[in-house]
Amino acid sequence: MSETARIGVTGLAVMGRNLARNLARNGCPVAVHNRTYARTQALLDEHGDEGTFVPAGSAEELVASLERPRKLLLMVKAGAPTDAVVEEFAALLEPGDILVDGGNAHFEDTRRREAALRERGLHFVGTGISGGEEGALHGPSLMPGGTAEAYRELAPLLERIAARAPDGAPCTTHVGTDGAGHFVKMVHNGIEYADMQLIGEAYDLLRRVAGWSSARIAETFRSWNRGRLDSYLIEITAEVLTHTDTRTGEPFVDVVADQAEQKGTGRWTVQHALGLGVPVPGIADAVFARSQSGNTRLRSAAAPLAGPRDAAPLEPHEAEEFAGLVEQALYASKVIAYAQGWDLIRAGGEEYGWDIDPGAMAAIWRAGCIIRAAFLDRIRAAYAQTPRLPTLLADPEFGRELGAAQDAWRTTVSEAVRRGVPVPGMAGALAYYDGLRADRLPAALTQAQRDFFGAHTYRRVDRAGVFHTRWDADRTEVEED
Amino acid sequence: MSETARIGVTGLAVMGRNLARNLARNGCPVAVHNRTYARTQALLDEHGDEGTFVPAGSAEELVASLERPRKLLLMVKAGAPTDAVVEEFAALLEPGDILVDGGNAHFEDTRRREAALRERGLHFVGTGISGGEEGALHGPSLMPGGTAEAYRELAPLLERIAARAPDGAPCTTHVGTDGAGHFVKMVHNGIEYADMQLIGEAYDLLRRVAGWSSARIAETFRSWNRGRLDSYLIEITAEVLTHTDTRTGEPFVDVVADQAEQKGTGRWTVQHALGLGVPVPGIADAVFARSQSGNTRLRSAAAPLAGPRDAAPLEPHEAEEFAGLVEQALYASKVIAYAQGWDLIRAGGEEYGWDIDPGAMAAIWRAGCIIRAAFLDRIRAAYAQTPRLPTLLADPEFGRELGAAQDAWRTTVSEAVRRGVPVPGMAGALAYYDGLRADRLPAALTQAQRDFFGAHTYRRVDRAGVFHTRWDADRTEVEED
Repeated sequence: MSETARIGVTGLAVMGRNLARNLARNGCPVAVHNRTYARTQALLDEHGDEGTFVPAGSAEELVASLERPRKLLLMVKAGAPTDAVVEEFAALLEPGDILVDGGNAHFEDTRRREAALRERGLHFVGTGISGGEEGALHGPSLMPGGTAEAYRELAPLLERIAARAPDGAPCTTHVGTDGAGHFVKMVHNGIEYADMQLIGEAYDLLRRVAGWSSARIAETFRSWNRGRLDSYLIEITAEVLTHTDTRTGEPFVDVVADQAEQKGTGRWTVQHALGLGVPVPGIADAVFARSQSGNTRLRSAAAPLAGPRDAAPLEPHEAEEFAGLVEQALYASKVIAYAQGWDLIRAGGEEYGWDIDPGAMAAIWRAGCIIRAAFLDRIRAAYAQTPRLPTLLADPEFGRELGAAQDAWRTTVSEAVRRGVPVPGMAGALAYYDGLRADRLPAALTQAQRDFFGAHTYRRVDRAGVFHTRWDADRTEVEED
Repeated sequence: MSETARIGVTGLAVMGRNLARNLARNGCPVAVHNRTYARTQALLDEHGDEGTFVPAGSAEELVASLERPRKLLLMVKAGAPTDAVVEEFAALLEPGDILVDGGNAHFEDTRRREAALRERGLHFVGTGISGGEEGALHGPSLMPGGTAEAYRELAPLLERIAARAPDGAPCTTHVGTDGAGHFVKMVHNGIEYADMQLIGEAYDLLRRVAGWSSARIAETFRSWNRGRLDSYLIEITAEVLTHTDTRTGEPFVDVVADQAEQKGTGRWTVQHALGLGVPVPGIADAVFARSQSGNTRLRSAAAPLAGPRDAAPLEPHEAEEFAGLVEQALYASKVIAYAQGWDLIRAGGEEYGWDIDPGAMAAIWRAGCIIRAAFLDRIRAAYAQTPRLPTLLADPEFGRELGAAQDAWRTTVSEAVRRGVPVPGMAGALAYYDGLRADRLPAALTQAQRDFFGAHTYRRVDRAGVFHTRWDADRTEVEED
């Protein structure tokens, strides 16, 4: 039984179990281990016939059962549990062996762990895994970060279990060294927050302005899902809106409390973007909208504030036309949110020296993950055409689409503003768009104010150098060294 | 010469020097010390006649010159230099002595230092100081955090040098323990970012939509400064807009590069708000707008994007009316930004057990600091009337004003959206307002989606408990434990 498994998996909760099954079902003998043996036994009992599982009763047995260089996938909770398991197995492994962390680690923890294990001759690969339970079993999007050498060893296995894009390419690639994989997974989730917020706003507009039923809105989302918005999130929106609550017979979405929760990756994304100086208002607005929705104390205190309450909905033919505008506003805002996400990928790559291929990220998110969408192939193509694209908005195709959508986008936001429907995501995306394309921003005034009250200096439009005006004296200008 | 000074100041760069002069001019004998003696000598030479300065050539001499319990104000660079100076003086002080850090420390560093010195029997008081060089000399707003005991010792001195509010009250108070003072200083700066961004948007609207000259806009700001917007930032906006560039004869603001810089406190504020789950989109939008303005690579790549370019400005009588709408949009957005700042003060206070009096913060910001404004007395009054106000928006006066302003606010944002003028701050503030007062948010859809793809569960509107729908099976609902 020794050295017969090509890879091991420790931690057989649902994600670990499904990844192990995915490996076995794809002809890859997999050693399986769990802190308590019952889960290992349950996996064998329930799914033992799906492929070759090599059960291990202990960490030592697990390690002994692996081909060399050993490849071991850790599927345990992020944080202290991961550190404990890493330490336990690192002590049993030998130089050249590869530990893969498939948990939801913070990329800075992954950097720390990778550096520590590298000192000991071990490879540590932090891998973002998206797609949830279903993805783990049938094909996730895999975002491994670590040495190129480790990736070469892992690639045949990862490519076998990853989701396949419509063109047949496996949804995995070597993202970059150390924390790169967990970093891009974080950004993926940040983009997911923004996309969900925008979908929520579109739904809210169809509900409150068009006056449509959930069923009618579901139909609309289904039709959008046949166009350029074709994506998993649009698809499940239609599913959710179609569902009827079994207790009340009401549309399901109407019985769900309107308080969105979050597990933290959206917040991390924004915090890091702030640190890197990358504007990601689309992600921030989504995180804040969730916090706001859950703050019942604030909401009940503010409920009596004046403003338009649901006025008469639009006439049917106007509603139909309005839905067309909303589709354009949603699409344009989505392009902006993704552009911000890709800016962050670039900035992170530069900051940490990861040399991330932005087009490859779009390629591996085309299937298996939550933001999977036809749209991502467009992003892949944009970077294929111009690898050094400074922003997605500079791609001629996306630029043209935004230009075509902007009238509708402006009308949608205006209508929302007029009727008191909150659309922070769509309005913020439009402000970002108008801010980027502005010839001249009021930032000049801001910088002048900073010089006035804090002598923070300014640059001039007509000559190089750094200047300060003596505001408290004769208001002459001095050039700083 | 021994034990003759009531307080010592070490670090005689401009802030330290001006605080020392402020103390001396107010009849408080002050010992002064600097790493290099030249600065001490310069202070004596230039301002020795302003009061009693006790020069110290060494740290030991400085400590020896102080009355007990010794009070020593550190005015050195935040970070490692502060740690070094704290350590140097802590070794020379005795139990009961008080070290005051008046630098721009991060509040978490202040918490760490306070805890370490408390172990050694010393008081450590982290004090936010706002007002810049001028404030330091003529009266800053002072935000000390530390023990109540230390505050009692310091109060007579701090009250003597602090700015005075219009009602004569000194702009200082015991904010709370350990890092409370530096925390509220951070929030003060975050609010300052938001306020400056909103002023910039108002200026941009008057420039691009009303088509007014800088001089005409300056006049408008001067008139606003006689109303409810009366504040230092509005006042200096008029000053800046009135100023003519001496090199070109052009309006000064037009020759300043439109790239706003930042030193980091705005970013910190948003990062901490995210950590605490407090929505502060008004501050985030301001930070992102500054980053966006400075990103010349993105801006030049996006410059060709389609959209309204400066259309014909409004007719004179329309412009006049429009300026009135902008004033209302600016005021309403400002109320929202300040409400978000006060939410963060409350949340920080709860998180760290500081028991901050929110009304007292408004009171001590009425003078001496950058956001000083007549408006702050209104906030003070709101909390005086209802100390447990859940949000500033629940104050009847502010609520009434927002209600009265909202039509104009909506029109202003719509007009900006239609004309392609970026107003992320005003639009975001309005979305926040409409989000808070909404009966029902699309967060219900978001949470349902989360349950669909990640089994994250949801709550219901009609019964307690946590639920999950088996989306991948028969779509029945199960109640979670």
